[in-house]
Amino acid sequence: MKRRVFYVSDRTGITVETLGQSLLTQFPDLDFVSRTLPFVTSQIAAQGAAAIIRAAKEADGVPPLVFSTLTDPATQYIIASSNEYVFDLFGTFIEPLEDALGLESSHTAGRMHGISDVLVYERRLRALNFTLEHDDGLSTRDLNEADVVLVGVSRCGKTPTCLYLAMHYSLKAGNYPLTEDDFEQCRLPPALLGCRDKLYGLTIVPEQLSRIRHERRPNGPYSTLAQCQSEVSTAEKLFRAENVQFLDTTTVSIEEIAATIVRDKGLR
Amino acid sequence: MKRRVFYVSDRTGITVETLGQSLLTQFPDLDFVSRTLPFVTSQIAAQGAAAIIRAAKEADGVPPLVFSTLTDPATQYIIASSNEYVFDLFGTFIEPLEDALGLESSHTAGRMHGISDVLVYERRLRALNFTLEHDDGLSTRDLNEADVVLVGVSRCGKTPTCLYLAMHYSLKAGNYPLTEDDFEQCRLPPALLGCRDKLYGLTIVPEQLSRIRHERRPNGPYSTLAQCQSEVSTAEKLFRAENVQFLDTTTVSIEEIAATIVRDKGLR
Repeated sequence: MKRRVFYVSDRTGITVETLGQSLLTQFPDLDFVSRTLPFVTSQIAAQGAAAIIRAAKEADGVPPLVFSTLTDPATQYIIASSNEYVFDLFGTFIEPLEDALGLESSHTAGRMHGISDVLVYERRLRALNFTLEHDDGLSTRDLNEADVVLVGVSRCGKTPTCLYLAMHYSLKAGNYPLTEDDFEQCRLPPALLGCRDKLYGLTIVPEQLSRIRHERRPNGPYSTLAQCQSEVSTAEKLFRAENVQFLDTTTVSIEEIAATIVRDKGLR
Repeated sequence: MKRRVFYVSDRTGITVETLGQSLLTQFPDLDFVSRTLPFVTSQIAAQGAAAIIRAAKEADGVPPLVFSTLTDPATQYIIASSNEYVFDLFGTFIEPLEDALGLESSHTAGRMHGISDVLVYERRLRALNFTLEHDDGLSTRDLNEADVVLVGVSRCGKTPTCLYLAMHYSLKAGNYPLTEDDFEQCRLPPALLGCRDKLYGLTIVPEQLSRIRHERRPNGPYSTLAQCQSEVSTAEKLFRAENVQFLDTTTVSIEEIAATIVRDKGLR
């Protein structure tokens, strides 16, 4: 039977999900089924959430796991009383943190994923717009305004990574797909010469690339293994010739690619 | 002086940043300057991180705050010995969790943001592709394959929200911009009739809309307050007439909009 997990939050639940899911990856042999109870902003809402948790315990015969990030002590108390296992992010860390800072915390509902700073938020939206407008070499104009420009063959992971870089790190991330023309020259296309220091290469194992391309365009040379092998090897040769740092994305998630690029390019 | 904060992780650092930033929002009067030390996968890397933390303490005269999610006890010990204030996510929660589950944890490096399940990961990439292909009404073909379709006037927040829904929740999120034609009829455009139950409306305060549009296109009627007022009020009228649930995005972050939609539409 799958063990039930609840994430209880006074806002989106994104922080508590991240925390809980991260801990649960340490138990790879167990199956979990999770439900998020977001926007628990009142004692009435907390009682509703507590009722759901109690019902799950009764139905399953074992207590579910409950992770919470409630900042209001009264609502947290209601949740804590509902179940044996309540892992309370704020309750656990906020006091030691108050001690460390010599200051009381505000105990206001989670602000993590709200618009706490309008300027920061607008910078993020601007980064996202820039990234969308420069996706797939759509526009190479003002590419030198980018914080980073990803280069690689079609379908090696540039677009998802760029979107993550914009969404999570508020970075203007352009990307440029290498094509036949660039390969023939084995040098950087003129459009990229103005942003040489911002380039970061992505590569991928040809078999995986072929599989990904096949899903989108099953026919024609685009997705054949031979074509993928040729493109990947030429792209890597170009990266080496032009001294562009690059990363193999084959077994690496978007988050890992993004975090690696941010670290390697010193973008924070 | 800004208090220094370090996030130490054996993988991307995204989980520990989320945790730490969330806690620090509870101290709104303090200024923090943070640095992430990701991919601390060995004792040598941990010693490097510890040296950076000690140097910060010496330079500042006060100990920094250190948040960590290291799963390897030996590397965690090195970090814990480097500073007074180390908030250790795994060390704090993993034992109580082991007790609750009656099982030892695997103590493997954080898998949260890796590709732990290829099928899940591919579903996410497919959702992202779908979302990009259906952005801004680009394609209304197979819109009924979407998990959710956001409707609203141009620049009310549809695209960023769709991207977040795809990236974070692996949802196929289409979006459809309402334009003059739709307003004249004051009814749903034919393209949306096949996915009526998936629609979710976004609206925004006209002043804010005008400001956002002005930044992109300063001239012409598109960004005038009168035009924005007219579009927003007609869009809201259409939502009500067609019984489309909608949300005002003016002071709400992408994450909050997305979490609200997921809850309202029962998408998890």
